[in-house]
Amino acid sequence: MVPRNERDKQPMTSRKSGLTVLGEFGLIASIERRAGQHTHVRLGIGDDAAALTLDPGHELLATADLLVQDVHFRTQTATAHQIGRKSVAVNISDLAAMGAKPLGLLASLAIPSATPLKWIEQFRDGLLEAAAVYGAPLVGGDTTSSPGPIVINITALGSALATQTLTRGGARPGDALWLAGNVGLARAGLEALEAGVRGFSASKSAHKEPQALLKYGMALAACGRCSACIDVSDGLLGDLAHIVARSRVGVELDEASLPIHPEVRRWAKRIGADVIDYVLNGGEDYALAFALHDTRKAPLLSTGDTPALVRIGRVTDTGALTLRRADGCLENVQPRGFVHF
Amino acid sequence: MVPRNERDKQPMTSRKSGLTVLGEFGLIASIERRAGQHTHVRLGIGDDAAALTLDPGHELLATADLLVQDVHFRTQTATAHQIGRKSVAVNISDLAAMGAKPLGLLASLAIPSATPLKWIEQFRDGLLEAAAVYGAPLVGGDTTSSPGPIVINITALGSALATQTLTRGGARPGDALWLAGNVGLARAGLEALEAGVRGFSASKSAHKEPQALLKYGMALAACGRCSACIDVSDGLLGDLAHIVARSRVGVELDEASLPIHPEVRRWAKRIGADVIDYVLNGGEDYALAFALHDTRKAPLLSTGDTPALVRIGRVTDTGALTLRRADGCLENVQPRGFVHF
Repeated sequence: MVPRNERDKQPMTSRKSGLTVLGEFGLIASIERRAGQHTHVRLGIGDDAAALTLDPGHELLATADLLVQDVHFRTQTATAHQIGRKSVAVNISDLAAMGAKPLGLLASLAIPSATPLKWIEQFRDGLLEAAAVYGAPLVGGDTTSSPGPIVINITALGSALATQTLTRGGARPGDALWLAGNVGLARAGLEALEAGVRGFSASKSAHKEPQALLKYGMALAACGRCSACIDVSDGLLGDLAHIVARSRVGVELDEASLPIHPEVRRWAKRIGADVIDYVLNGGEDYALAFALHDTRKAPLLSTGDTPALVRIGRVTDTGALTLRRADGCLENVQPRGFVHF
Repeated sequence: MVPRNERDKQPMTSRKSGLTVLGEFGLIASIERRAGQHTHVRLGIGDDAAALTLDPGHELLATADLLVQDVHFRTQTATAHQIGRKSVAVNISDLAAMGAKPLGLLASLAIPSATPLKWIEQFRDGLLEAAAVYGAPLVGGDTTSSPGPIVINITALGSALATQTLTRGGARPGDALWLAGNVGLARAGLEALEAGVRGFSASKSAHKEPQALLKYGMALAACGRCSACIDVSDGLLGDLAHIVARSRVGVELDEASLPIHPEVRRWAKRIGADVIDYVLNGGEDYALAFALHDTRKAPLLSTGDTPALVRIGRVTDTGALTLRRADGCLENVQPRGFVHF
């Protein structure tokens, strides 16, 4: 751990900030006390590093995401609990896209000295709640004061049988292209929130409380038919472009097959926008787009909570992203940047 | 990856910022192009997660450190290259304290839009240089714009034979206590820098360009005689207190044995401070304090670059941190917070 700035631990103001009251070590200790027992965690919080055990034949999957206040979230529109849960879910979604099982999380948190204790505690509780939901114990991290915005970095560690890990690079021409989960919903929810429009609760929930399709990703890895997978965090086209690049293939989407959530249709109509643009260029949906190398249906979860599954197109050899319009015409399409808020 | 704020990618000002020119994906791509081949890296940058292979019998060690501008570093007194190197070294030091061999690094970087391209490139080069020195390839991470200070999170991943991993928790009464490397030097260097005093180059270098004792930590793990180890980032007493707590032992330091670097002695004399306080309560030294369960000397590196080694005391059963003064008196001592700058 890097030493903390003493001045930030004892700010000049008389206002008692959350970090002052709880203290860095107090925050870590309160997390450590709540850590459950996990057989693969030999050492969790409390040493220079966490020590984790991988099962035989498994490889390590590691991913990190940085969330910055007023770039990735606003404390005005999301609760600390929601931000804590979301910061875990977006990272678990990356593990899901690899078909990995979580091993643990490292959470680094830079907090302004004036942050209320209640915010920090609720953030911690949200983070730990999501960690428990996904079976990803918090095994380490760092906390520090910050003169600027709240900054959260989560590193998610997972493992998968090396022979089963899903990547962006294995799609082949002729593969079927599938989508698990919704797209466009989080963007509609964000816009409805920003516009202060009531209703659109599914959309707002998709934006504020995204769910990672962890179990489905693991089922895809286990089914042996999935040639490539990615989580749709930057918009469907933007993420499919990564599969196109890494697999050196093309992708053809069927407009008629694209799933449109009723709230997305209603929101697009309300603001006079093209609903297909929400589906193609939404963002933060944390759906999974994947290729299957046979024509059978995508696998179902035996637990009964299979996400919405739609076959949305096919993998081609053109090297291009194309959209087969409902009238049969084929168009080249380009991913468009996603306006966060 | 979490979507970026489009407004930050295209700031309203006409001034071309580093992040605008290079772009997030440009920065990642430039790092990916420089990534060397590492047999244990099956997938590096470019997928939803990195895929790494551990050797048989090895466990995973994982640690994260957050560095915040104007809390942990200042761009006025350290170059971007130095900050890049330091952000790697402080994390590698945690792996060193576990006796681990590096597997890879994940680097998350929040950068103000106005940061010059040159700063970002030099930071990247410093980070990659240190990554190469320690054999820890950059395998992932995240970059985003930030409305606030520069924030850097590095996650270091390593592995060690599960039977050899060093922890804070294995020290036993009767063990000899040793120190590898200097203490107090980085604090003297920081104070000399802040005071604008010339000279004290070893001290300033210790502050700005700390070295992680990675090879020595690995040698300690391999020697089979080391019962506990910690890196001295928060000051010798502060870090020994962690060994006391985790091992449920006491520690007795010999004042007469404590190593005092000539520059630390000179700096303390210059400002009229107690030199022993620098040794006991410095910070950011990244030395290794460790316990050996026999009375033989600490192991030497066959490569000839063994750090300074001093036997500084012993492990006791008192549960307390004590200091045997040069006159024979035994004092209880308490760690003191470290003023960063």
